[in-house]
Amino acid sequence: MPKQIDHEKRRKQIAEATWRVILERGMEGASARNIAKEAGLSLGALRHYFSTQDELLVFAMKLVQEKARARIEDIATKDLPPKEKMLHILLEIVPTNEETIREMEVWFAFTVYARHKKDMFDANHDGIYGGIRNLIAYLDEFDLLKQDADKDIEAERLYALIDGLALHAMLDPVRVNKDRITRVIMQHVESICAEETNETEGREY
Amino acid sequence: MPKQIDHEKRRKQIAEATWRVILERGMEGASARNIAKEAGLSLGALRHYFSTQDELLVFAMKLVQEKARARIEDIATKDLPPKEKMLHILLEIVPTNEETIREMEVWFAFTVYARHKKDMFDANHDGIYGGIRNLIAYLDEFDLLKQDADKDIEAERLYALIDGLALHAMLDPVRVNKDRITRVIMQHVESICAEETNETEGREY
Repeated sequence: MPKQIDHEKRRKQIAEATWRVILERGMEGASARNIAKEAGLSLGALRHYFSTQDELLVFAMKLVQEKARARIEDIATKDLPPKEKMLHILLEIVPTNEETIREMEVWFAFTVYARHKKDMFDANHDGIYGGIRNLIAYLDEFDLLKQDADKDIEAERLYALIDGLALHAMLDPVRVNKDRITRVIMQHVESICAEETNETEGREY
Repeated sequence: MPKQIDHEKRRKQIAEATWRVILERGMEGASARNIAKEAGLSLGALRHYFSTQDELLVFAMKLVQEKARARIEDIATKDLPPKEKMLHILLEIVPTNEETIREMEVWFAFTVYARHKKDMFDANHDGIYGGIRNLIAYLDEFDLLKQDADKDIEAERLYALIDGLALHAMLDPVRVNKDRITRVIMQHVESICAEETNETEGREY
């Protein structure tokens, strides 16, 4: 058993080396040779852990996805008011710190690369769209959405907004910083929600 | 003079061959050899028109940008009511047909590539952000924006929405088709504008 654990741990280390190579040299520099060197392994040892280049790349990308998913699940289980929980989750999807911007950059480079590799990896369906649809349904469950909202279109709109912000946070992190992203997302969530009625006050009459 | 015109025409043909190579093989396949072959030229002849690979790529990308700019300017000079003009312009920025989706794909691949080439080409500042800011100012000039709108944040929000839609139109053109893009953009423009008041009716009293 410890041997298997070591095997998986080493695979993760190689994945992390792959991210560093992609960040530094782009996908065109992510050769087995460069990755082995970055991981401090021989080419032969690298092949022991991943038999093909594409197997390694797919593993490295799934790890990015898993890290993001774990962070989001962590917030989802917290005891927060619905709107606040939604804000926190959306702020977790859009990269706002150095680590998540780096992850986004790797993800982005890979998405472009994988488009020319059919059936390699469906970066297209990264689960974010489904998650956004659930968030809109969640607001609706608590009667927070505007009455006349078209939930299907609102989900598509929010999904585009979030991915657009993520893209801009990566391309122009000075302007599109955490404070600005927070203001844009708060403004959006407020605009799709009904005006808050102060129920307690109402009940006093 | 005709010789100079021929020279520029040939450079454009080579740029178009470059787009086709990028679409088919990705940036990693966009070698001088492959581009020369696609353009039906020898490597030597290609070098006559572009002395370096990067000079060719930058020219090919500027041409994509110019085509988009020309289409947008064409709409901007039309005599249309402000909100309708804005809708048309936004629908021109988001790719909704095969040609513009292809352009977006080339642009996207190039943006990722250029990130690892410092000072090559600032794909980051493609002029769209400035254009979007102008559109928000334009709505405001006609008193169409909601009174309490924060124009700066609204411009950032619309810019993210538009680029997110463009990204999704490219990655998932079946779901994110022209009809759906139109509905999302219309919903957004309506939501940032004040409720329409029927001024003529008001004047009758």
